[in-house]
Amino acid sequence: MFEFELIKECKDTKARVGLLKTPHGDIETPIFMPVGTQATVKTLSPCELKSINSQIILSNTYHLYLRPGHKLVKEAGGLHKFMNWDRPILTDSGGFQVFSLGDLRTITEEGVEFRSHLDGSKHFLSPEKVMEIENDLGADIIMAFDECAPYPCTHEYAKNSLERTTRWAKRCKDSHQRNDQALFGIIQGGTFKDLRIQSANELIPMDFPGYAIGGLSVGEPNELMYEVLDYLTPIMPKHKPRYLMGVGAPDNIVEGIMRGVDMFDCVLPTRIARNGTAMTRTGKLVVRNAKYKADFTPIDEECTCYACKNFTRAYIRHLIKTDEILGLRLISIHNLHFLLELARESRNAILEDRFIEFRKEFYKKYKI
Amino acid sequence: MFEFELIKECKDTKARVGLLKTPHGDIETPIFMPVGTQATVKTLSPCELKSINSQIILSNTYHLYLRPGHKLVKEAGGLHKFMNWDRPILTDSGGFQVFSLGDLRTITEEGVEFRSHLDGSKHFLSPEKVMEIENDLGADIIMAFDECAPYPCTHEYAKNSLERTTRWAKRCKDSHQRNDQALFGIIQGGTFKDLRIQSANELIPMDFPGYAIGGLSVGEPNELMYEVLDYLTPIMPKHKPRYLMGVGAPDNIVEGIMRGVDMFDCVLPTRIARNGTAMTRTGKLVVRNAKYKADFTPIDEECTCYACKNFTRAYIRHLIKTDEILGLRLISIHNLHFLLELARESRNAILEDRFIEFRKEFYKKYKI
Ligand SMILES: [Zn+2]
Ligand SMILES: [Zn+2]
Repeated sequence: MFEFELIKECKDTKARVGLLKTPHGDIETPIFMPVGTQATVKTLSPCELKSINSQIILSNTYHLYLRPGHKLVKEAGGLHKFMNWDRPILTDSGGFQVFSLGDLRTITEEGVEFRSHLDGSKHFLSPEKVMEIENDLGADIIMAFDECAPYPCTHEYAKNSLERTTRWAKRCKDSHQRNDQALFGIIQGGTFKDLRIQSANELIPMDFPGYAIGGLSVGEPNELMYEVLDYLTPIMPKHKPRYLMGVGAPDNIVEGIMRGVDMFDCVLPTRIARNGTAMTRTGKLVVRNAKYKADFTPIDEECTCYACKNFTRAYIRHLIKTDEILGLRLISIHNLHFLLELARESRNAILEDRFIEFRKEFYKKYKI
Repeated sequence: MFEFELIKECKDTKARVGLLKTPHGDIETPIFMPVGTQATVKTLSPCELKSINSQIILSNTYHLYLRPGHKLVKEAGGLHKFMNWDRPILTDSGGFQVFSLGDLRTITEEGVEFRSHLDGSKHFLSPEKVMEIENDLGADIIMAFDECAPYPCTHEYAKNSLERTTRWAKRCKDSHQRNDQALFGIIQGGTFKDLRIQSANELIPMDFPGYAIGGLSVGEPNELMYEVLDYLTPIMPKHKPRYLMGVGAPDNIVEGIMRGVDMFDCVLPTRIARNGTAMTRTGKLVVRNAKYKADFTPIDEECTCYACKNFTRAYIRHLIKTDEILGLRLISIHNLHFLLELARESRNAILEDRFIEFRKEFYKKYKI
């Protein structure tokens, strides 16, 4: 049911074009995946997600486990049916949220005990429990339960953490039930080269159908992230998809693609929409700023999204200033459309042997 | 540019079917008008408003005067262009909001001084100023600046208020500039029969192209509202549209239509959506209630709106419980669709000489 076809490799860089086949349809890589934390991509309808050509979305195991609960989602017929999204879905393992949102967590070899960030109730997640939850949710791609080390952390902490992640990955693999779900392993190891290589070397023999790079974009400088990718992707399996978790800044995506990454996800496009900030090819545009008060041009003249084809900066600014939800919707649509297009344009550039020029053009306009 | 064609009168009641022609298109009456207070119908896009067959929307002069300001809207090319809505728009006069939201207001013959509910800044609205604002906004139908008396109030208060409203209506008419905008007069007089008749008799000779009934649905019992309509609509011009302001409860709409009202507006459908409450043919349905947790049926099986055709009560409840905006959107779409359909079905029933049966059927299912 799963297959990753490597369609083309860039002649100048490690960038590549692929096709990932899943039970709910094919995904053209490189791809950006909008995040639907609570079984909804913030402010958008499934219909709008399709209108911007979202091929796959991500949802969060930790949040869905707490609300509405995986058993309810299962009873609804799985996540696709529950949220009325018939294209591929990826669920993360909840590991990142347990470590970033959960209170008073205690990590043992068995798993993690934590208190819910919502009501303080006590919960326990183990690799087996996470597989049960992800099996019930029924996403096409599911992630192994990992421990995501913070940045910065010591070599010792990162080593213990990655080794536990390896043992947990094995337990996830052993307890994963459904053939229609692809379980991806997650490479950890912080920003330590030896540990990243150790993690990859431990996980690759387990023959997961895809591999994620976890524990990046957690506060480290961009250069350090790129350095990790530089030595990590070359040792990752060539014929399996590579997913860089939690990365969504436009320049990070272009750099990730150049280093051979196939999949990206991030809450950034919908999160900054809430501050009235749009992503554009020239950099961030803070629509709520006073200078756009009487600007009757769209967010981006060249953009073909619903927001840009129908509304002006002045109107969107008015909506944001008056706390009207349509403002969030329009900027969210635009931002997601922008990242999806960025991945699609990168893909076309690789296919047409002009990725180097494409990247150059990107930086000519883009201000970080 | 304006014309109201009386197409059919009910043989049993005062209900009627009409066609109101405006520069931005025809409106089939009876009609419910969604309210877009701040140049946006809360949570919805213009595209969605069209999908539920909204023929005209209402916007608020008071709110737009404060933000973004009528001069900005004029600079944008008018309200239609500013908010990208190419069908008819009606703007109220701001009178109701000045009296309900404005602080420290001082009413004189000249106009009303008040402080903004947003920042306490001081403002002055007169009939002439309101006409200037409404002319700049550029709606198809605009309302005269009126004083809306509270309920309950004394006969003396209501009398002074309606007489001032008459004098202000004359000043509005004298200062109204644009031929492509129809200025409606507003009949006041509280719940006093002699005063309502006095108001109508003063305004009707001024020959406005349409008349609104103001000062109802402000806290009085339904029976009192119906009583006012009973004696008021028969003395209102037959060949001009009649607009009952601020009324949107389903039973109020059916009763208003039976008494010869053509137009309705209310924030109710979008306001109760925020509490997770849906309007249905059997009455209110509080989707956020625990009993819908595992209810995998739509809000209303028979409804053809986007929410009901694609999502379950369980999912919408989850969205509301987790404060996800899509939940508000779906209930808002459903509620507005419900009221628009109610008006449309009433219209068809009148056309087919079965309005009495239609009303009976409505009450058989509907629980207030
Ligand atoms: Zn756009
Ligand atoms: Zn519906």
